[in-house]
Amino acid sequence: MTTLQNDTFLKALMRQPTTYTPVWMMRQAGRYLPEYRESRKTAGSFMQLCQSPSFATEVTLQPLDRYPLDAAILFSDILTVPDAMGLGLYFTEGEGPKFERSASDEASIRALEVPDMAKLQYVFDAVSSIRKALNGRVPLIGFSGSPWTLATYMVEGKGGTDFLNTKKLMYARPELLHHILEVNAQTIIQYLNAQIAAGAQAVMIFDSWGGALSHNAYVEFSLNYMQKIVAGLTKTADGKTVPSIVFTKGGALWLEAQAAIGADALGLDWVVDIGQARQRVGNKVGLQGNMDPAILLSTPEAIEKEVASILASYGHGHGHVFNLGHGITQWTPPENAAAFIAAVHKHSKQYHV
Amino acid sequence: MTTLQNDTFLKALMRQPTTYTPVWMMRQAGRYLPEYRESRKTAGSFMQLCQSPSFATEVTLQPLDRYPLDAAILFSDILTVPDAMGLGLYFTEGEGPKFERSASDEASIRALEVPDMAKLQYVFDAVSSIRKALNGRVPLIGFSGSPWTLATYMVEGKGGTDFLNTKKLMYARPELLHHILEVNAQTIIQYLNAQIAAGAQAVMIFDSWGGALSHNAYVEFSLNYMQKIVAGLTKTADGKTVPSIVFTKGGALWLEAQAAIGADALGLDWVVDIGQARQRVGNKVGLQGNMDPAILLSTPEAIEKEVASILASYGHGHGHVFNLGHGITQWTPPENAAAFIAAVHKHSKQYHV
Repeated sequence: MTTLQNDTFLKALMRQPTTYTPVWMMRQAGRYLPEYRESRKTAGSFMQLCQSPSFATEVTLQPLDRYPLDAAILFSDILTVPDAMGLGLYFTEGEGPKFERSASDEASIRALEVPDMAKLQYVFDAVSSIRKALNGRVPLIGFSGSPWTLATYMVEGKGGTDFLNTKKLMYARPELLHHILEVNAQTIIQYLNAQIAAGAQAVMIFDSWGGALSHNAYVEFSLNYMQKIVAGLTKTADGKTVPSIVFTKGGALWLEAQAAIGADALGLDWVVDIGQARQRVGNKVGLQGNMDPAILLSTPEAIEKEVASILASYGHGHGHVFNLGHGITQWTPPENAAAFIAAVHKHSKQYHV
Repeated sequence: MTTLQNDTFLKALMRQPTTYTPVWMMRQAGRYLPEYRESRKTAGSFMQLCQSPSFATEVTLQPLDRYPLDAAILFSDILTVPDAMGLGLYFTEGEGPKFERSASDEASIRALEVPDMAKLQYVFDAVSSIRKALNGRVPLIGFSGSPWTLATYMVEGKGGTDFLNTKKLMYARPELLHHILEVNAQTIIQYLNAQIAAGAQAVMIFDSWGGALSHNAYVEFSLNYMQKIVAGLTKTADGKTVPSIVFTKGGALWLEAQAAIGADALGLDWVVDIGQARQRVGNKVGLQGNMDPAILLSTPEAIEKEVASILASYGHGHGHVFNLGHGITQWTPPENAAAFIAAVHKHSKQYHV
């Protein structure tokens, strides 16, 4: 294996000393970059970018060629997993992801099983290819959706925000939802471990829709299954621990519970003050976040001011990975992303002396 | 004025003793009721229901004729206010509310002013008409959107969830957004006071989109303006205090700040545990909430269990108005709403002895 030239990101996740605060952006390989739009046009579709290791490698590296980011993240989609389970993922222009078959009645739910990982080989091939192309510049993050988040797509058969069918199942037939979640958790353990075997140096679990749950339901139907996944993660082939990040969007009320599941770091959206979040989790975990991506639509001055404010709120010491609180929007001027990353590097040094 | 026969709701908002926990449902006059769908068909559209005092009275009373609810709420819409400002509200089937003109550039923003309340006379006429029809059965709640929530529609020109234009304005030209918010706050003070003069016995401010803001932005751009409104509310014609409820959906991280603005009660969505919320706000305010409306799609047994759990979490003592954490969905079987209300009345008595 090539020597890693910049391990700031991995150290920060493990709350080890660094000389500045590392930064990356969720969805950093995305539509706001003209070179990404070009690649997507050439590939033909979003899913063809994901399914081709060479395209996935190309777009994963694009933001790194523009900006001094401290981590790369596998270009893929959380819905590769239910697709591999046979639900038939497809995209229609302007309507978001859909599935040909949903898992919404007892028969279709009971029929779900952990898929053969060979069906996801294209993802692991992309990980290997990206690692090779990175050549040790920065660490590579692998990822998965959370069991609950994937379940919402599987039950609804499409994306949404209120998840009425999934919640109806949760309250009327909880054992059926638990079956889906258990299959998802076992699948995700295999899926992330295969990414680690292929070269992922950190893993992140995106619980994009955990924040739609009530307090009690969150622990039972989302957090407990993420805990199971974290407990099932393996080390790298050469024996290194792979730091894990758990991110429940809209879940900042539950940080104390999240900090207790064994993950190394927690993702934060922009709703919570990061200084207060740090007080609440103590020394248990690192924190990743948490600037509102909408700020990147404004001006370099406003961006720099907000970066400085978040850094000051986190305060002195280690354990912070700077990021947005959600994916970068497609309307972001690329020069504003540059201003963001520069501001994090510039202003964070004073907090690491 | 007719004597109020059931003042349980008003007492609970003021944290005075009651013999059970009062209950009403956000959007209780709505599409889940066949009689509502019939009225809407007769009226021709949603806005015609709002603009006709006789239709507004008819649908406001429909849920009260079915269920032993402890409060009525004016049938109206938060977007009546920007419509009165001249933005031209209209609805297109399946796409939600839109405005003919948005307030998104400097000229259109600077041109905004507090509208003549005569343009909203149909709302005040509806309040008077409903009060008369209620004949003292239960109190009538008046309401408004929050300044921030209305601003999102005014800047975007339509509904949404990410509010990128509004946030771009907030970070790049904050003084322009403050101008909109100030006009909105002054308008809402007049609007709610006119509802009170017409007979509203409690008022609620719906900050439906405050939860989309970052920690610092929430206080500056939403909460401060709601504080101004609460401070500007008048008493009833016969000298009674009108309890106020402030509800920021997705805002449970900020309960302590909300409890300090002078409102009598806070609305809670289902994400927060109501017992923990009560501990955090102490004796400062009453609490209204907080069952996930999706549970009403399940079974009477699951509904009763959840009601009992929320009541137990709140615990002994007064100051709780039971409600959903968001509007009742159109897919709710009416008999499940009945089971919900019965469960609140049945299980809550033990906490008020």
